[in-house]
Amino acid sequence: MDKTTGFDLDRIRADTPATAGLIHLNNAGAALPPEPVVRAICDHIALEARLGGYEAADAERARIEAVYDSLARLVNASRPEIALMPHATAAWQLAFYALDFRAGDRILTARAEYAANYVAYLQMSRRTGCVIETIPDDETGAIDTGALERMIDGRVKLVSVTWLPTNGGLVNPAAEIGRIARAHGVPYLLDACQAVGQMPVDVEALGCDFLSATGRKFLRGPRGTGFLYVRKSWLDRLEPPMLDHYGAPWVSSDAYELRSDARRFECWEKPYALTLGLGTAADYALALGLETIRDRAWRLAETLRAGLARIPSITVRDLGHERSAIVTFDHDRVPAGDIKAAMRGAGINVSVSSPSSTLLDATARALPPVVRVSPHYYNSEAEIAAVLDRLEEIAGQ
Amino acid sequence: MDKTTGFDLDRIRADTPATAGLIHLNNAGAALPPEPVVRAICDHIALEARLGGYEAADAERARIEAVYDSLARLVNASRPEIALMPHATAAWQLAFYALDFRAGDRILTARAEYAANYVAYLQMSRRTGCVIETIPDDETGAIDTGALERMIDGRVKLVSVTWLPTNGGLVNPAAEIGRIARAHGVPYLLDACQAVGQMPVDVEALGCDFLSATGRKFLRGPRGTGFLYVRKSWLDRLEPPMLDHYGAPWVSSDAYELRSDARRFECWEKPYALTLGLGTAADYALALGLETIRDRAWRLAETLRAGLARIPSITVRDLGHERSAIVTFDHDRVPAGDIKAAMRGAGINVSVSSPSSTLLDATARALPPVVRVSPHYYNSEAEIAAVLDRLEEIAGQ
Repeated sequence: MDKTTGFDLDRIRADTPATAGLIHLNNAGAALPPEPVVRAICDHIALEARLGGYEAADAERARIEAVYDSLARLVNASRPEIALMPHATAAWQLAFYALDFRAGDRILTARAEYAANYVAYLQMSRRTGCVIETIPDDETGAIDTGALERMIDGRVKLVSVTWLPTNGGLVNPAAEIGRIARAHGVPYLLDACQAVGQMPVDVEALGCDFLSATGRKFLRGPRGTGFLYVRKSWLDRLEPPMLDHYGAPWVSSDAYELRSDARRFECWEKPYALTLGLGTAADYALALGLETIRDRAWRLAETLRAGLARIPSITVRDLGHERSAIVTFDHDRVPAGDIKAAMRGAGINVSVSSPSSTLLDATARALPPVVRVSPHYYNSEAEIAAVLDRLEEIAGQ
Repeated sequence: MDKTTGFDLDRIRADTPATAGLIHLNNAGAALPPEPVVRAICDHIALEARLGGYEAADAERARIEAVYDSLARLVNASRPEIALMPHATAAWQLAFYALDFRAGDRILTARAEYAANYVAYLQMSRRTGCVIETIPDDETGAIDTGALERMIDGRVKLVSVTWLPTNGGLVNPAAEIGRIARAHGVPYLLDACQAVGQMPVDVEALGCDFLSATGRKFLRGPRGTGFLYVRKSWLDRLEPPMLDHYGAPWVSSDAYELRSDARRFECWEKPYALTLGLGTAADYALALGLETIRDRAWRLAETLRAGLARIPSITVRDLGHERSAIVTFDHDRVPAGDIKAAMRGAGINVSVSSPSSTLLDATARALPPVVRVSPHYYNSEAEIAAVLDRLEEIAGQ
């Protein structure tokens, strides 16, 4: 145990029994959930089978409500600013499609923007005539905030970027982007899918108006969960693109009344077992401390990058001033898919990031499919060493 | 065991252990899942914790794909016509909001339409100037199909109704409505939330273009699941209201390409554990046979209605020529909420249907909150008798 932080790797790994036999380095895909998360989900499924689905939700109402508090704490928001979502994309979409774009409106985004978001920009552009523009990168590959500031004019309707792109270790200067957006009164939508659970996230420091997050990645929550943060000042002027009677109760034959909180973006039905799993994951991360989590995960990633740099046939592809726990590389002969398969055979989970997931960036940088290795705080130094050993073997073949 | 149908109540109740001590008659809310459904969910959650979330989905890819086949079989559709959804409302919304309404376009719906849907009509009407019109009822309270036929003109853009309304035993003539809609080339969106799992559902016989369904109700699947059926002939001309790179892969810097199947309405991320639970629930229902299920559930409901008719202070509120397994009533002195609470105290789950869930119908009929008792095939005759005994006690107090 680390005396300063109270961080106890043995206990954490014991909470994650699969770590005894598996080296899981696909935390940017979906992390291994700790036992309390698994238990929260299956206990509630069992409760539903014992009491009935509605009756179980009634019985656990206080714990379900507390999930909003946990998520609010996780991003330094208030409870009314949080909406539960079936996944991060739904969260992102409901905010994005709620905005009223007109012909000529400009959407400013980043070159490494995630495919899900970019497809939505393209659809909105076709539908309304709004324009998608890419903010230039600085010399490190991060968003150039000076360039962003120079691009702002009265036609900029939205600044919308992915904080930590899916295809590498880049950490975009999200708070500086927020400062610029706020200074010019431009709405700011931040995709924090890879950030939440990996590092401290503070919507006040970020200055974002909307933030989307997933449960399954570094937060170690269930698949099929996510949440949306909506800044309070937006809640009385933003109508969700689709509504049901939960977000907007039907109050008279010809009228509905929008809820005053972010749950206007929710629908009535929810997967409560997964919701409780998500809340448990948030509590687990908060108890460890997000700075502790980030420091360790990033240190493991740097160790990995340093080791990769010593293998001549491998090129690390990560950009940016500071770098996240997402490590990407390619080999000059062995395709990424083959490396993934070979690692899998050795009991090591990594993933492959395909050019289509960040098409503009991959095209601009002529990126092939890259191997993505994403350690988390529960990984060990020995696991990183084992990965490097295995890669040296592959490289030497 | 019933020799003709092979229906074995003892085995079915053994599959649903809670029935040993609980009388669950809230199947129109959420049914008790059978053990195989619980197991499918928790096995996959455990697999995710053992292998990783992406790796578990890869390992179970064939079973996940088979869920689409099961759901297609359940409604007599083909696999490419099925999209998985986080709930029935999402299914309904994605179809509804995909349609292109203009000022003056008419939406024809029913008086007993569900609040979730009606709120969406109201939003669309405010947004586009389209008009919502209620199809008159016939003398039994069902949709008057003659009146519907007379309402059709070139401005009718959609016929959209709830097959089995949430607030009573009414079964609307969904297939006859479909015949009329098809004859006039009008799109037909059918909310089959209470029908799927309770009775045979055949999209060919119904003639619907879109059908929305939930997992948690009579299908006995997990909370937080649903699916959308989209008729094949619509797939090449309907763009979902929101898109990600799963429904529409990003194929070049300025273009996406919609999937050719109904999954264009899906997003990439899914709650695979719940998906497998949903598929298991569909298989379970299909193995029993939907006619067998309907016949037994409806017979129990009729037994209940006959018993309720003998209690003078109680008024049964169910309308229609034929009546579903949803039984609703009120008492001339005891509020519905008090009856629900008293039943709960006696180990009996029922629910209360509030006027706001079907506001137009409740207003027209001056309905108070009504008690909703919704038996399913796994309930026993003795349970129905116990409910009637308890209600007689309450009525006599």
